[in-house]
Amino acid sequence: MQFTQTDREYMSMAISLAQKGFNTTTPNPNVGCVIVKEGEIVGQGFHIQAGGPHAEVFALREAGAHARGATAYVTLEPCSHYGRTPPCAKGLIDAGVSKVICAMVDPNPEVAGNGLRMLQQAGIEVASGLLEHEARLLNKGFLKRMEHDLPYVTAKLAASLDGKTALKNGKSKWITGPHARQDVQAYRAQSCAILSGADTVLTDDARLNVRNESVSEVSSRLNDDDIRQPVRVIIDSQNRLTPSLSLFKCESKIIILRSKLDNEHVWPHFVEQVCLPTVKNKLDLNAAMQFLASRNINSVWLEAGATLCGVMHEQGLIDEYIVYLAPKIIGEGGKGLFQSNILTEMDQISELQITDCTQIGTDIRISAIKK
Amino acid sequence: MQFTQTDREYMSMAISLAQKGFNTTTPNPNVGCVIVKEGEIVGQGFHIQAGGPHAEVFALREAGAHARGATAYVTLEPCSHYGRTPPCAKGLIDAGVSKVICAMVDPNPEVAGNGLRMLQQAGIEVASGLLEHEARLLNKGFLKRMEHDLPYVTAKLAASLDGKTALKNGKSKWITGPHARQDVQAYRAQSCAILSGADTVLTDDARLNVRNESVSEVSSRLNDDDIRQPVRVIIDSQNRLTPSLSLFKCESKIIILRSKLDNEHVWPHFVEQVCLPTVKNKLDLNAAMQFLASRNINSVWLEAGATLCGVMHEQGLIDEYIVYLAPKIIGEGGKGLFQSNILTEMDQISELQITDCTQIGTDIRISAIKK
Repeated sequence: MQFTQTDREYMSMAISLAQKGFNTTTPNPNVGCVIVKEGEIVGQGFHIQAGGPHAEVFALREAGAHARGATAYVTLEPCSHYGRTPPCAKGLIDAGVSKVICAMVDPNPEVAGNGLRMLQQAGIEVASGLLEHEARLLNKGFLKRMEHDLPYVTAKLAASLDGKTALKNGKSKWITGPHARQDVQAYRAQSCAILSGADTVLTDDARLNVRNESVSEVSSRLNDDDIRQPVRVIIDSQNRLTPSLSLFKCESKIIILRSKLDNEHVWPHFVEQVCLPTVKNKLDLNAAMQFLASRNINSVWLEAGATLCGVMHEQGLIDEYIVYLAPKIIGEGGKGLFQSNILTEMDQISELQITDCTQIGTDIRISAIKK
Repeated sequence: MQFTQTDREYMSMAISLAQKGFNTTTPNPNVGCVIVKEGEIVGQGFHIQAGGPHAEVFALREAGAHARGATAYVTLEPCSHYGRTPPCAKGLIDAGVSKVICAMVDPNPEVAGNGLRMLQQAGIEVASGLLEHEARLLNKGFLKRMEHDLPYVTAKLAASLDGKTALKNGKSKWITGPHARQDVQAYRAQSCAILSGADTVLTDDARLNVRNESVSEVSSRLNDDDIRQPVRVIIDSQNRLTPSLSLFKCESKIIILRSKLDNEHVWPHFVEQVCLPTVKNKLDLNAAMQFLASRNINSVWLEAGATLCGVMHEQGLIDEYIVYLAPKIIGEGGKGLFQSNILTEMDQISELQITDCTQIGTDIRISAIKK
């Protein structure tokens, strides 16, 4: 099927709608839907929250009887299975739409083409692949988990212009400015989990939660109490954390990954200790990522020190690097971003691809993905 | 005087004209001129080469009799002194212009307001300060030399995304890509001098010259042989350079800065050895910069290793940092951009200001100035 410029415009709108769910849909994918009848938009919707209606349902509700004979633009193949909600393909059939254009097939094995087949069998014209690249960016985490049984890991890094995170003696407070720190809040809010190490939690007494003001986009549709806090996942292989830390003051799910359980302390009800295998006395991070995927964690925001970032990087577990560079020079002896094995040949250097470079307040944010 | 939007537009054109001289005017400033009569541009010009006509002369020639009663927009106060050419203020008076608007007063002590006074005394209406900030950027080097008796030093730095220039064992070829290297050629071409150290010359057998293709902007007006090669300035305090190096294969001015003359070798005619004082057994770089300014060097492009860059940085001699970052991660042990004293307090960190951030091929170029 040949897509027209008009098709592209409606799909682009559906993609914009889908983005509104960035902070809330996990573990479900972000999906947007636009229903068009005789050149007019008769219904729009996006998925807000797992368990709640899918994008198509919102759009069909708005369209009502106008859905009959209309074209539905959906950013992801409509689902075909009964989950917490009935299949959307059935909803579209019942509403009498005559055509469904989607950006991509759903890699979820429970769907994987079945939605399109169901529609076709009901005599609806279907097409897929319109703005697929853009639609994939809506669901980097969901797709990584579906396709690789691993979460999409984004590492947050912050350094001076010459790549230093701290002075040689360890002093490091506020390398980047307030705009960059606010920007980090938005990334946290969009992630299923925030991953850090015991070192960072102990050194900074970090809470690693999302502050309300950073999720204002969805607050008109959600009560304050419903703001989703990403699961905080802390690697603490030596059982150094204690319940008195600020981390445990914020009452939202925490998973502590360890090599053996800590029975010395009484932990709050929202804390879960999980034991994982070790490799050379260190927690097996690949196993850790697989475990998180098994818990439906699509995307992980890695906000940790040079040790954990170094190992995650070396093991190829980081998909995306968000590097904030402050207009400062620290020079000789300053601490680097990654603690890792020392390279001896040029072909051992990790090659990335820059995807964005933006000024954030007085700092710069560089985004790069694994090549 | 109140400037109008139309005034701003003409001055903006004059600034664009001035930029065409970026590769060639040294040690003179870049100047552009637009002459407007009854809402029409009757003459335009820019300064091309020291010793050649000034911007105003080109514009007046083009305007001819139309200059009478016209307004001249000049990016720098017209000169008032007899140099290699007669004063432009006199030229404007003789041509009968009725108004001269300039972007800024010339800080050159031989002018410094005298040009404007000369015009005023001849009954011409004068005004200054239109788009002054933009006009100053035309002549960062000239202004630094006039105002501080020092050249404007821009350091070229290239590293991986994590701020490393080489592996721990020193391996480092081609960190950045071909676009970034071409971009460097353009910066070299605009500089009065290229400054490097004996280390870089010996390690890379560097020529440090400008290749023809990078100066195409001016080639329509200049013969190939007239392409200006920046003076190459090499710091060689231990007299390690020898005339057989590639550096000396390109026949254009080289200044070697040393602590004592090398009489062991026979040097080509275009090589000048200059002895400078030392501080703690190292060449006094502040004295070196003053010396270069005394030789009418406005702008220096510093393209050197971590040692020289480190000392230049520490001594506050770098005005601007151009950092090319390649989408690579080298990690632990990689060489840093600056060899410098180790900082112990956060308030010792040098604060810069980002002025630009652009993708250059597959790399990123960040420009920052001293705050």
